[in-house]
Amino acid sequence: MRDIFTAELTALGEDLVSMSRLVETAIASAGTALLTQDLSLAESVIADDHTIDAMERDLDERCVQLIAQQQPVARDLRIIVAGLRMSASLERMGDLARHIAEVARLRYPSKAVPAELEATFTGMHQAAALVAQKVTTVIDTLDLDLAAEIEKDDDELDRLLADTFAATAADNCPFEGAAVVDVTLLARYFERFGDHGVSVARRVVYLVTGEVADHHRAH
Amino acid sequence: MRDIFTAELTALGEDLVSMSRLVETAIASAGTALLTQDLSLAESVIADDHTIDAMERDLDERCVQLIAQQQPVARDLRIIVAGLRMSASLERMGDLARHIAEVARLRYPSKAVPAELEATFTGMHQAAALVAQKVTTVIDTLDLDLAAEIEKDDDELDRLLADTFAATAADNCPFEGAAVVDVTLLARYFERFGDHGVSVARRVVYLVTGEVADHHRAH
Repeated sequence: MRDIFTAELTALGEDLVSMSRLVETAIASAGTALLTQDLSLAESVIADDHTIDAMERDLDERCVQLIAQQQPVARDLRIIVAGLRMSASLERMGDLARHIAEVARLRYPSKAVPAELEATFTGMHQAAALVAQKVTTVIDTLDLDLAAEIEKDDDELDRLLADTFAATAADNCPFEGAAVVDVTLLARYFERFGDHGVSVARRVVYLVTGEVADHHRAH
Repeated sequence: MRDIFTAELTALGEDLVSMSRLVETAIASAGTALLTQDLSLAESVIADDHTIDAMERDLDERCVQLIAQQQPVARDLRIIVAGLRMSASLERMGDLARHIAEVARLRYPSKAVPAELEATFTGMHQAAALVAQKVTTVIDTLDLDLAAEIEKDDDELDRLLADTFAATAADNCPFEGAAVVDVTLLARYFERFGDHGVSVARRVVYLVTGEVADHHRAH
């Protein structure tokens, strides 16, 4: 009985890793579609998001069934509840990637990101892709050093978000209203990847150490 | 034993309702602070958000303990897991109210919302406050008609978001870059209240009827 439970818990972890890999791909593709006006890549991110949504529903259902059938306590139960939370974060990251792809598609064949902000958004894309990669590895390996690194990537995304707002708020802002709306939303979507990444990382830290990493939250 | 469990489940529901009332107040106050440049009201929303965060952590902990101690199955288990999900939505609504209050504080004593968009934002504030009130009542009474109404309020928020973007994207857009950034973010925060409200409403519908309201999601 215990062996079956351990096997099911392992399977749950593997499915979370698979889901996280899909999110990685979605983020990498959405950013590339945005920065290179690749319409078919944008379309594929939009079309594939339902797979991530379906994985969340499937994971949720299995978590509930696992609790009902195996009646886990203590650490096992916390792992399952953390799994429920992490799948919600990953699903939301998938939505944000879809939103980015939707902006790319809306503006095609024009660029949604003005030339003046291309470097900033390339930086955001790289930082977000890095967060997504690390999230997958952290879920897979429970590597706490890597979990801590995600907080730094999140700081970088916060900094680039501030850069974007400063550029659009400048007195001699060269962008039209629609462009400001686009880059404001896009920068916010990228920045939210960092927040969700940090949220997943902290749940892993809590599972491993039993301590809530709360210093950043208070800050 | 069963009576104690029922009592604890009832207490959990009551705490969710209390949490939802705090969120209602936060949204109503944040909108008022924004539209009337009320700095002290904005400060109070920002300061009070930690209470909502603490309620989420407390509710989570009690859900986990309830599962561990009572080992509920079937419907009882689903109620508890739905509670975990709803507390996460409510916590996020509290964050969004805080974000709105932070923009109001940042621009004080100036207005963050330009005069041309005041009517639109008054409409968003009203729709969001309505969503929050209905969420509380739906959690409290499981009223499915009211749950369905939240979907309509969400549509209204989507429409007002589109209005805001159209106004800022107009060729003769009279707003400066910083103002466009502010109203873009603010409109998005208000619109997200609708999404979270719909998410809570659908969980309640699912608990009561066993059916996932998914038509909107696919759309």
